[in-house]
Amino acid sequence: VHLDSTTQTSDGVCEQDFTLDGIPGVLWTPAGAAGTPAVGTAARPLVLLGHGGGQHKRGPALVARARRLVTALGFAAAAIDMPGFGDRPKTAEDERFVAEIAERRAAGEPVGARIARYQVARAGQAVSDWQATLDALADLGYPGPAGYWGVSLGTLIGVPLAAAEPRISAAVFGLAPHDALAEAAARIAIPIEFLLQWDDELVRRDEGLALFDAFASTEKTLHANPGRHAEIPEFELDSSERFFARHLKA
Amino acid sequence: VHLDSTTQTSDGVCEQDFTLDGIPGVLWTPAGAAGTPAVGTAARPLVLLGHGGGQHKRGPALVARARRLVTALGFAAAAIDMPGFGDRPKTAEDERFVAEIAERRAAGEPVGARIARYQVARAGQAVSDWQATLDALADLGYPGPAGYWGVSLGTLIGVPLAAAEPRISAAVFGLAPHDALAEAAARIAIPIEFLLQWDDELVRRDEGLALFDAFASTEKTLHANPGRHAEIPEFELDSSERFFARHLKA
Repeated sequence: VHLDSTTQTSDGVCEQDFTLDGIPGVLWTPAGAAGTPAVGTAARPLVLLGHGGGQHKRGPALVARARRLVTALGFAAAAIDMPGFGDRPKTAEDERFVAEIAERRAAGEPVGARIARYQVARAGQAVSDWQATLDALADLGYPGPAGYWGVSLGTLIGVPLAAAEPRISAAVFGLAPHDALAEAAARIAIPIEFLLQWDDELVRRDEGLALFDAFASTEKTLHANPGRHAEIPEFELDSSERFFARHLKA
Repeated sequence: VHLDSTTQTSDGVCEQDFTLDGIPGVLWTPAGAAGTPAVGTAARPLVLLGHGGGQHKRGPALVARARRLVTALGFAAAAIDMPGFGDRPKTAEDERFVAEIAERRAAGEPVGARIARYQVARAGQAVSDWQATLDALADLGYPGPAGYWGVSLGTLIGVPLAAAEPRISAAVFGLAPHDALAEAAARIAIPIEFLLQWDDELVRRDEGLALFDAFASTEKTLHANPGRHAEIPEFELDSSERFFARHLKA
């Protein structure tokens, strides 16, 4: 892993870019806390932040969430660009898919199920990217425990990730349908907080409820709120923090 | 209102019994804070606690919740015995109903819908009791704003109360079906936190979801968790507190 020399510190948060075999990422830590914790101290909990569709590792809401995890909980947070987003190239297939979705939207057709199938089918690369990132962050002194936060695209990738990766010990998911994720969800038994938008224009309500139902976790909690796909209320930011505080603190 | 002379203070909480036209109740306040707040200070927020079926104003979980509202938030809390519960007499009709439910349970028949219809049909008396209690607490220096917390029986009575009573400005409800409460729920527009148990043996999942859907509130949040009717997880206690802190603090 290559940690960029440009480190920005502001308001108690240290923000460092990194690059790992072509995967661009960002690591947020409490200022002055970078590097390996002293021998005998517990590892600093880490939360991976999976961005949404059309977004990237440094979207404003994602950065705000990362900074809150650092300042309110003293955790580390990390984000990477998913394949085809942010600073990573789109394949010819990605370009065709983007054009297809734009056409369907213009025609007023539903697109949620199509997006879910496409992204889950290619989630293997993103899962490998996150696993390599976890290895690299462990080398930098952040071996976990690790939480994962990601809704919409962040869940289409995060559910296969959590099913494959035992280092993820708690996750916030949501805004995704059952159909494409049922098999992976059934293999997940870690604590889950699941966000559902009651008037989601991309994910049918019964599909979202069915995905919540599919997790094998004994502790899972569904938070449903009125509003469209992108309208998760502000207070859920606070709730996610408390969820991670419950499950990741020593 | 008659405030009993026996006042118990422990761990920073003052607990006072009161009696109001035959309604026995309890008021919890921060120790040393009883009586009217000083002129010019905001009124202390108040949360009414509606007990569940077979319970009463001083059940252990209810008392624990009241004490947390006082110690964590500095709020006042109050509970009364519902008609036919705790220190209040059962009518002959109540006795027949209790016997009928016991018979149905013994026969393995579902009882949730029957309980809901019975309790909602007679909720008028309980609503009046709570309104008289609000009047009396205002005279004692607690004019509100007032929140309401109550699930199961606490919701069968609380929903008609919140529909009738403008002094209730935020409420936690749950564990109740749509059928008997639809009309009252549609007249409620205050912020709601709604608890649903995913494996509730008394309330069908679709009935609980339909009741959440029926509230006219623009801010309403559904918290669904695995488990049976009485198995609401401990972390929802904390969530309810934060809900009231958001909505009742000045």
